[in-house]
Amino acid sequence: MTRDHALALDKADKLAFLRDFFEVPEDLIHLDANSVGPMPKGTRETAKGLLDDWVTLRRRGWAERQWLDMPSLLGDAIAPMIGAGKGEVVMCDSTTLNQFKAVAHALSINANRNTILTQSGNFPTDLHVLEGLKHVFSRDLRVIFCASEDEAIAALNEDTAVAAVSHVDYRSGERWDMARVTKAAHDQGVLTVWDVSHSAGAVSVDVRAADADFVIGCGYKYLCSGPGGPAFIYAKPGLADRAHPAIAGWMGHADVFAFAGKYEPHPGVKRFLTGTPPVGANELAKPLLDIWPKVDPQALWAKHKSLTDYLIARLRTECGPLGVTVTSPEDHARRGGNVSFSSPGAGSVVEALLDQGVVSSFRKPGAIRFGVSPLVIRHVDIYDAVQRLKHVLKAEIWKQPKYAKVAV
Amino acid sequence: MTRDHALALDKADKLAFLRDFFEVPEDLIHLDANSVGPMPKGTRETAKGLLDDWVTLRRRGWAERQWLDMPSLLGDAIAPMIGAGKGEVVMCDSTTLNQFKAVAHALSINANRNTILTQSGNFPTDLHVLEGLKHVFSRDLRVIFCASEDEAIAALNEDTAVAAVSHVDYRSGERWDMARVTKAAHDQGVLTVWDVSHSAGAVSVDVRAADADFVIGCGYKYLCSGPGGPAFIYAKPGLADRAHPAIAGWMGHADVFAFAGKYEPHPGVKRFLTGTPPVGANELAKPLLDIWPKVDPQALWAKHKSLTDYLIARLRTECGPLGVTVTSPEDHARRGGNVSFSSPGAGSVVEALLDQGVVSSFRKPGAIRFGVSPLVIRHVDIYDAVQRLKHVLKAEIWKQPKYAKVAV
Repeated sequence: MTRDHALALDKADKLAFLRDFFEVPEDLIHLDANSVGPMPKGTRETAKGLLDDWVTLRRRGWAERQWLDMPSLLGDAIAPMIGAGKGEVVMCDSTTLNQFKAVAHALSINANRNTILTQSGNFPTDLHVLEGLKHVFSRDLRVIFCASEDEAIAALNEDTAVAAVSHVDYRSGERWDMARVTKAAHDQGVLTVWDVSHSAGAVSVDVRAADADFVIGCGYKYLCSGPGGPAFIYAKPGLADRAHPAIAGWMGHADVFAFAGKYEPHPGVKRFLTGTPPVGANELAKPLLDIWPKVDPQALWAKHKSLTDYLIARLRTECGPLGVTVTSPEDHARRGGNVSFSSPGAGSVVEALLDQGVVSSFRKPGAIRFGVSPLVIRHVDIYDAVQRLKHVLKAEIWKQPKYAKVAV
Repeated sequence: MTRDHALALDKADKLAFLRDFFEVPEDLIHLDANSVGPMPKGTRETAKGLLDDWVTLRRRGWAERQWLDMPSLLGDAIAPMIGAGKGEVVMCDSTTLNQFKAVAHALSINANRNTILTQSGNFPTDLHVLEGLKHVFSRDLRVIFCASEDEAIAALNEDTAVAAVSHVDYRSGERWDMARVTKAAHDQGVLTVWDVSHSAGAVSVDVRAADADFVIGCGYKYLCSGPGGPAFIYAKPGLADRAHPAIAGWMGHADVFAFAGKYEPHPGVKRFLTGTPPVGANELAKPLLDIWPKVDPQALWAKHKSLTDYLIARLRTECGPLGVTVTSPEDHARRGGNVSFSSPGAGSVVEALLDQGVVSSFRKPGAIRFGVSPLVIRHVDIYDAVQRLKHVLKAEIWKQPKYAKVAV
């Protein structure tokens, strides 16, 4: 496993051309796509176009540009990455808001059931949303917390309205079996809401094969919609139509331009559009309209497997003797976008790695995360990153006082 | 009332310096700030900074930039424009979503009342939100529609939980008396949610003097947050704390960085923050942090009065004989940001005016709207716009077939 071996793997990579669509700094290895994905080169141009339109077109932009269509256009562009079809996904709002809409919808459909099932280790905002829903739905809702996939399946029953779970744990990177859990849920009449923030754009998500009901997720991680960029929501065909949306807004109206006083929900997932789209944020994401349709999802997932299997092997060989233990599952089918590992001085190691040109992230209590974007990361980047990690550990660079303060 | 008279008025304008903060095209008179306000010159630089940070900083931007503070910083910057104090306003999400949050909050506080009062002519999305809320709050909510301020006041009673009304009608530009309606509401124990989309940044909004409860509004009109840019929400001190937010998200947590599983709402208005902020959209609005604190609200409102009183006088003198009738109220205290008028061939007139370098807007059935931003518009712009309107009408330019198709 030499550096030349890594270069040879990259030479054989059929998706190597994708890296050219992104602006990648020469001197940095960004393993933080679990937080913010890379920027398309085309963003500089779409940003300039937006500012010129803001100055000159002003209100004419609504009609003369695709400002109002962008949520659907972006949704169509990313849909294949989660196994969805055209018209089944919209990019809009935030993961938090889409989680609210999806769970509220499931609660409206399963109106005679009063339990929401989730993970005890779910991402905080997903849990907070469920708290909020308890305060608006006047019926006596309860939230059940499960620690594992098996525990969740065992906890499903005839009072469970919805299982709202993350596909991948944001700390450990552990991936749940979407098809298995959804099947178990459906057997009990339970609807599912999957948060695929840490899998979409990196590893296999196939909402159709899994028969998932609602799927929501972050746009700005592996999907590259830009810092705080638009999130997305998917609803299984026919399902959106079964209830009135909790948050009814003019962009979800069947005929936006009618300026009708009476709300008539748009058929399908578009009823989950709410207010005026964030045109600025959407235009920054616009180059995705050209990029994602060029990506074969199966090839992308295979590349992510190759990169992260290689990463795990390298971590064990090079850094295992220095105290590093991989904490993410061994099997790629059980992993998400990031590989997590423990290490002596974990938080300080992440800080020290920054000065070595490797951007990773730390999560309490002791996880270092390498979030691998298969769009831009090469095997040689993995090789170099692990060599630098080895250097930081072996030379005990992380013990320098300047690395004591760990950024959240 | 010559052009020189208009120029003399502009020479005496103490707020003339504000125009220099904005990128204003030489050849266009934009009277569409009721749809999209002007762009600060500084936006080009903040946009470039954002893109550079996206490429280089990636996840470090969360800690090293003010990405997560921007909703509060922007809120503080615009607060004086609605008569609010520091820490009482956040810029976030859309008007639709903030309307949802505010009305839901009022319904939670007034839990034993089941009526929502609104305007029959309210902006569609405001009405749609109320429809949606009926579907999540399981109690038997009713919406009462009122056509006028007096009718609304008469309809308030002990079952009214909340009056959710627009400060200014988006078509006629008619402004309600916020203090009067709020007083009448409070006399009946009713909470108020004011949508100030068509007044904030143009005419007097004083939430403290009016003792308003919740105030929400659009950021991208007179407040210049950019196309689809962040909206805002205000809650009277003490009021936010009286209920759990309907949409609980990690940005509204008392300690975001604790990554706590248990939701603890932030004191005050910050509990209305939901998901990750739209960093891209916020950075485009960042120059507002420097601009709005330089604006004396009283002077701004006085300038808007001067501009629009002048506009109404000019319309009557120059275009009255050609069939133009001003439909907005005569008294500035009863008007919002735009002046509306009827005209022969209204929709086509708006199209024809575009080719004369005047950007206005049309709303069915027959309203032409001149939305006047006192930040950039001068009396001479008003003079020129009316002269061109007169030309379009007198020479019957609007009857040319190419102007038959009217953009929404």
